[in-house]
Amino acid sequence: MNLPLLAIAASILALCWAIALVIGVLSKKTGDTKMQDIAASIQEGAMAYLNRQYKTLAIFAIIIFLILGFALPSNGFLVAMGFIVGAVFSALAGYIGMGVAVRANVRTANEAKTSLSGALQVAFRGGAVTGLAVVSLALLGVSGFYWLFINAFEIPIQEAPGLLIGFAFGASLISLFARVGGGIYTKAADVGADLVGKVEKGIPEDDPRNPAVIADNVGDNVGDCAGMGADLFETYAVTLIAAMILAASTLTDKIGATGIEYPLALGAVAVLATIIGIYFVRLKEGSDKIMWSLYKGTLASGILSGVGFFFVTKYMLNDMHIFFATVVGLLLTLLINVTTEYYTSTSYAPVRKIAKASETGAGTNVIAGLAVGLASTFPMVMLIVVAIFASYWLGENSTLGNGIYGIAVAAVSMLSTTGMVIAMDSYGPITDNAGGIAEMTDLPPSVRKNTDALDAVGNTTKAVTKGYAIGSAALAALVLFQAYGEELMKSNPIEFIFNLADYRVLIGLFIGGMLPFLFSSFLMSAVGKAAHSVVEEVRRQFREIKGIMEGTGKPEYSKCVDIVTLAALKEMVIPGLLAVTAPIAVGFILGPLALGGMLGGVIVTGLLMAINMSNAGGAWDNGKKYVEEGNHGGKGSQAHHAAVVGDTVGDPYKDTAGPALNALIKVINTIALIIAPIIATHSLL
Amino acid sequence: MNLPLLAIAASILALCWAIALVIGVLSKKTGDTKMQDIAASIQEGAMAYLNRQYKTLAIFAIIIFLILGFALPSNGFLVAMGFIVGAVFSALAGYIGMGVAVRANVRTANEAKTSLSGALQVAFRGGAVTGLAVVSLALLGVSGFYWLFINAFEIPIQEAPGLLIGFAFGASLISLFARVGGGIYTKAADVGADLVGKVEKGIPEDDPRNPAVIADNVGDNVGDCAGMGADLFETYAVTLIAAMILAASTLTDKIGATGIEYPLALGAVAVLATIIGIYFVRLKEGSDKIMWSLYKGTLASGILSGVGFFFVTKYMLNDMHIFFATVVGLLLTLLINVTTEYYTSTSYAPVRKIAKASETGAGTNVIAGLAVGLASTFPMVMLIVVAIFASYWLGENSTLGNGIYGIAVAAVSMLSTTGMVIAMDSYGPITDNAGGIAEMTDLPPSVRKNTDALDAVGNTTKAVTKGYAIGSAALAALVLFQAYGEELMKSNPIEFIFNLADYRVLIGLFIGGMLPFLFSSFLMSAVGKAAHSVVEEVRRQFREIKGIMEGTGKPEYSKCVDIVTLAALKEMVIPGLLAVTAPIAVGFILGPLALGGMLGGVIVTGLLMAINMSNAGGAWDNGKKYVEEGNHGGKGSQAHHAAVVGDTVGDPYKDTAGPALNALIKVINTIALIIAPIIATHSLL
Repeated sequence: MNLPLLAIAASILALCWAIALVIGVLSKKTGDTKMQDIAASIQEGAMAYLNRQYKTLAIFAIIIFLILGFALPSNGFLVAMGFIVGAVFSALAGYIGMGVAVRANVRTANEAKTSLSGALQVAFRGGAVTGLAVVSLALLGVSGFYWLFINAFEIPIQEAPGLLIGFAFGASLISLFARVGGGIYTKAADVGADLVGKVEKGIPEDDPRNPAVIADNVGDNVGDCAGMGADLFETYAVTLIAAMILAASTLTDKIGATGIEYPLALGAVAVLATIIGIYFVRLKEGSDKIMWSLYKGTLASGILSGVGFFFVTKYMLNDMHIFFATVVGLLLTLLINVTTEYYTSTSYAPVRKIAKASETGAGTNVIAGLAVGLASTFPMVMLIVVAIFASYWLGENSTLGNGIYGIAVAAVSMLSTTGMVIAMDSYGPITDNAGGIAEMTDLPPSVRKNTDALDAVGNTTKAVTKGYAIGSAALAALVLFQAYGEELMKSNPIEFIFNLADYRVLIGLFIGGMLPFLFSSFLMSAVGKAAHSVVEEVRRQFREIKGIMEGTGKPEYSKCVDIVTLAALKEMVIPGLLAVTAPIAVGFILGPLALGGMLGGVIVTGLLMAINMSNAGGAWDNGKKYVEEGNHGGKGSQAHHAAVVGDTVGDPYKDTAGPALNALIKVINTIALIIAPIIATHSLL
Repeated sequence: MNLPLLAIAASILALCWAIALVIGVLSKKTGDTKMQDIAASIQEGAMAYLNRQYKTLAIFAIIIFLILGFALPSNGFLVAMGFIVGAVFSALAGYIGMGVAVRANVRTANEAKTSLSGALQVAFRGGAVTGLAVVSLALLGVSGFYWLFINAFEIPIQEAPGLLIGFAFGASLISLFARVGGGIYTKAADVGADLVGKVEKGIPEDDPRNPAVIADNVGDNVGDCAGMGADLFETYAVTLIAAMILAASTLTDKIGATGIEYPLALGAVAVLATIIGIYFVRLKEGSDKIMWSLYKGTLASGILSGVGFFFVTKYMLNDMHIFFATVVGLLLTLLINVTTEYYTSTSYAPVRKIAKASETGAGTNVIAGLAVGLASTFPMVMLIVVAIFASYWLGENSTLGNGIYGIAVAAVSMLSTTGMVIAMDSYGPITDNAGGIAEMTDLPPSVRKNTDALDAVGNTTKAVTKGYAIGSAALAALVLFQAYGEELMKSNPIEFIFNLADYRVLIGLFIGGMLPFLFSSFLMSAVGKAAHSVVEEVRRQFREIKGIMEGTGKPEYSKCVDIVTLAALKEMVIPGLLAVTAPIAVGFILGPLALGGMLGGVIVTGLLMAINMSNAGGAWDNGKKYVEEGNHGGKGSQAHHAAVVGDTVGDPYKDTAGPALNALIKVINTIALIIAPIIATHSLL
């Protein structure tokens, strides 16, 4: 059986399925012209942003394409080609996902007029398009190139996976910028809109009189939909590729191509399980168990994947140790979800402590939130550590006798729910937008009630998705790090040992550990700066356009969209360049050992900061929600004011800096892997 | 020449000098009976806290003494004896320092009636007592034990330094609890007093009607004076000992005892330079260059140390490479000070950005502060990395051919300004208290103006001291880490390589990296909890004692002192136990390689988080000050309210969690070094 072709077939099937889902979503009604107008503004703004972002990145990508093509010692052209396709596929996934999301929002609002379950279905299926597009394009890219390299270019199997690094790099570069740019965009628009709208003018969220309201809605799509899509596209592709590279350098002597192609087989099984899982998301009319209906889908695709993995493993490797490594990956996904929900849901102690601390003011609210974020690193790290330990043990005690491959398999297995996780995540901005559209077009309160019910769940799914993305990024990065070590030794057969007691490794560890701090700082400041320019524009419009507050003058929404677009693109450049140049500088100046230390440092503190920031942000957000539900004085109370401050602090924490760290970790690791053959023999130290 | 005896003589001289300074301070007048009453309450509260803290710790210390004495494979009794003396000396330094500080405060207030320069002198000399006591006791302990081991117990020179680890452990254990307990005490009292006093009752800071006002003043002494004293006592002792252990295991073959005793010689020179430096701190009558007069003392003692180091190095090692390694240490101290001042002083961009961000509310103020703290890790890490690189290079290219020894020498050289740094730091609570006493006893505004001028400088010196403590802690920890590796190989002559690609090292790295996050979270929550109990007591007193607000009823200050004392002691237990048990658990269960990874992780993230938290806190504090100086609306404005929130958040950041991380890093490294001989041959993995 030709496994790469099978994986290609599965991914094309999933892509077709996504198209079918698009047709289904588009067949729904879009409501009255007022709704269509608002929706069109959001569509226009979102597409304008993506177009500009990718135009900017295209120049950057072409330069890197040329460098890769000419500077790499061998097969540079193939790597460069992979790079461009990886970048284009990532962009494509973003376009498809966002294109559907900005059309599903108005249809969700319209469905919400009559039925909660109908609205859920449109919103979720809209999100599922992104999920399927991301997963199928990633699997198609990886398996397609692998097949091409072997069959069209006649590359030996143990070398083919190494060339896939170009595809991985293309994916992670786009992911980095999409996360950074999208994250700055969404929070700058949000904070900017709130500062003038809520604080200065006293008008509610999503009020059409606020000139930044469309920008805010665009931001939800750009950040959570396109940004998260690119992020998980990258995680998916990079994890698969890292596992294949590792197999190529450590397993081909023993079992030929089987170790390399096994991850592709897992991917093919999971993509089919995802298609089936989508149909488990159903809400009985009259039921309000929205969260459970979403979880059902994820659970179903996870369990189906597990069953599939059993047979695939039996058939390909006939080793139950390896099968159990896939189970470790599935369990890790489950337990990360549970943990994240504990720290960010209004039902448990952490969020309630934050809400209670709001009673004594904003200061104590913020302290409590910071403490929750920091504390949440403990269970998350322990889960990851146990997973590393278990999967390593399983790998080492398998017939393959390869512990790292066990970790790689667990990481690939984690990917099996990626499609569903993205679907749940993209569902968030769709319902959020639907609520905004309902508000702006004066639909009856019952509609808003339905969209609010859907949106409340969206907050939790967004937090859970982040936890999942961080966890899988960490495992993927570890496998990349191992591959980096293998790659060095291939190019220079002296022993490269990343001994922590070596001063070069230590220096690298310090620099790498510091990068996530510096990077986060840039992003937090960027949100502040970009929000400031939004504030000034909104103030100008209120001042210069007569009758906005009375509803007789129409704000210039597109001006705000333009401003925040430009600001986000401008602010994404420096942190983006920092991520790309840091490993190159360290690698060439301080050498391969220091770069190895740097990878270790960036993985550890990147993981910790990402967990800390995402969970603190989610907890603050729901702490505010909990107060708004009527606790500790409810809306408008002193505690509520304090909780709003915490939520504002949490915004760039959870939606800008935190998620961008995943991309940072992997972009640095990918670049290290690419330059490894060169620095193994050429560096100053 | 007998170097250990010389070091003993120098430290005894410094101790006598400290006593002379005490006599000088006590000879000053204490003002009227009202002032004496207030001062007596503060003294009583501070001593009551220290007594209870050390009583609690005594039980703990005795248990560990017994374990060390009986469980260690060889010479357990000597190590245990060192442990107890280290703990007692650390406590003694705390008692001496605080005993003087709580007597210097009222005398400073009284001097401030007539002269700013007179007040500065009393306050600084009071602080200098702590500085000299800490440095001399640490040097006396290390050189005394070393001399005893060799002469009275006839231990071979290459084994004697290893036994000093008991003294180091005693010092770091006390330091950990003093930092944790003192940090919780000071901020719980501060936040608790402010929440009811300023926010609910609208009475100013240091108002005698506030029942928590004495507790707040006690807290300044307990946290900044006793806590910082114990912290730097530990850093001093541990750094010296780590350098000597390293020399013992790598240099004795080559140069006998010279490499071991060279750090002691540097210490002896520096302690003399410190005595001289004290007399450089002078303020001309009429001048207001307070900061500069303090810096002059530090600069003088640094330069004099450098000159002394030149001759000592020439005489003992005759190698200018090693002398330049001492210069690296001195320059690092200077540059860390400059960097910290940049990030935390009202004169530069970071603090001003925070102040400006206050205009748009507490949310943006907090975001700006978080960003400043995160960004400040970049220059600090780069400075430390360059210092590591330079001193390693110098060590390796010296006749000794030992790079790590170069790092150790730079670390020891950093200690030469410890006495002055502590003096500047302890000066802070003295002037702060003096201001409080002036306020509470209705002294004329001119007095308060003088004490305020002194206190404003105290804020900056406190921030700078923290930066210094973190930097030297990092270098000390690195040397300890190296010593840990040497120790393992001595006990089990297989090669222990902390290879980052080894899954055990990685697991350790993750767990170690996570610890500072978890530990900080405990401390942040502890401050919240303890502050809450203060709030309840203060509210109770306002409710039950008639006439407090009118000034006719007297609040029960001692009740608040009792409550915060008990709360701080209770809350210090869990984080303290976490720090002690984590390395033991990882070492025995996951083995020496995982423990090595853990040390690497805790050093890197501990350093980063400590820098981040200290600088963010200092910047928030001065951001508030900058607004209060009349910028962005000045006192009472919207921006001021926002800046107060940032300052509240910064309080546990900079005074509880941040500084305690230094102690955490070193306690874990010290414990690792102690258990190394056992786990080298006995561990599960």
